[in-house]
Amino acid sequence: EMRPYETNPSAIYAASFATVAAEARLDRFAPALHPLITRLIHSCGMVEIADRLAFSADVAFAGHHAMQSGAPILCDCEMVGAGIIRRYLPAHNQVIVTLNDPRTPDHAAKIENTRSAAAVEFWEPHIAGAIVAIGNAPTALFHLLELIDQGFPKPAVILGFPVGFVGAAESKAELAANPRGIDFVALRGRKGGSAMASAAVNALAAGLPEIKER
Amino acid sequence: EMRPYETNPSAIYAASFATVAAEARLDRFAPALHPLITRLIHSCGMVEIADRLAFSADVAFAGHHAMQSGAPILCDCEMVGAGIIRRYLPAHNQVIVTLNDPRTPDHAAKIENTRSAAAVEFWEPHIAGAIVAIGNAPTALFHLLELIDQGFPKPAVILGFPVGFVGAAESKAELAANPRGIDFVALRGRKGGSAMASAAVNALAAGLPEIKER
Repeated sequence: EMRPYETNPSAIYAASFATVAAEARLDRFAPALHPLITRLIHSCGMVEIADRLAFSADVAFAGHHAMQSGAPILCDCEMVGAGIIRRYLPAHNQVIVTLNDPRTPDHAAKIENTRSAAAVEFWEPHIAGAIVAIGNAPTALFHLLELIDQGFPKPAVILGFPVGFVGAAESKAELAANPRGIDFVALRGRKGGSAMASAAVNALAAGLPEIKER
Repeated sequence: EMRPYETNPSAIYAASFATVAAEARLDRFAPALHPLITRLIHSCGMVEIADRLAFSADVAFAGHHAMQSGAPILCDCEMVGAGIIRRYLPAHNQVIVTLNDPRTPDHAAKIENTRSAAAVEFWEPHIAGAIVAIGNAPTALFHLLELIDQGFPKPAVILGFPVGFVGAAESKAELAANPRGIDFVALRGRKGGSAMASAAVNALAAGLPEIKER
């Protein structure tokens, strides 16, 4: 016989967020950052990521303001887009993923970089003041920073969560060391992923509405 | 000036998979499991998850066989579906997500469980012999096991990667302790997520084609 389990969504959210607050010792961070850090931890089940976050002081305010102003959200892969809770977006913000644009493979060959990096170039018409959410490819983040150094328009916020063993730690270290005047949050090291990138978007869009809804 | 970074996709995959093999000491696992474990680790950047995987001995064979036979893939959320690489599916396998079925909210209220759990009931016409990929909700896995105990048709394989602080560890422990005769893989503890669930599907579908493609 299976043991009983919690089936009430409000109770599940409340217990989850309480565990995060206690174990991650959220009170060491500015209150404006609590929803962002809470959703990041909630998305991966790892309170220890709180110790390895890098961010600009104004990232929560800048992200919220951009969202409210209708900024589009540029994602490096379909999974990040799929994790964005559309009803939380305050201004019907567009969610844009160019990785599967039919021009991407040829453009990747031309610039001798990955498809993820090539796809970033197609963000140009949308990126000024936008929210960038990278949850997969280190080359997308590296190439974005390169393009910005060459005069590409700047986003309002970069949510930097590329994951893995080749370039992930390095690309996020480059962002944190020189954010080019852009507000940002990133998880140092190899860990990251699309769920974290989506969680960051959802936090900037709506905070923790699951708590207020109860 | 930014340091150079690796831009060649084949070189990135080769270096990533080599790091996984070495750091996770893959040779302690049966060769049939290597692609599955490699893709799981690659999806999250954490070699240490190899130590906390639970699985049935035949999961790789059973999963591959089901895929080849055209089994549908049932996912607990849109992100898992978005991470499945469609061109890797060997038999144009259907990817089914019922979480946003318009009947789900009412059904959740009726059964007094989460929307994720209610959505599992709509898998009934498809689930016999299917691949189940759970990357978000503990209640989806708990409720699936409950339904199977009540005579619900059995899938061929359960890929168990619910994540978080309430029920994730417990639901995966229940699966591992009593898999009801179903082949499975699960990550014990709080960690999990949609990227891991998708990675497991991609491994069962295609192994590591990035290596052969070089």
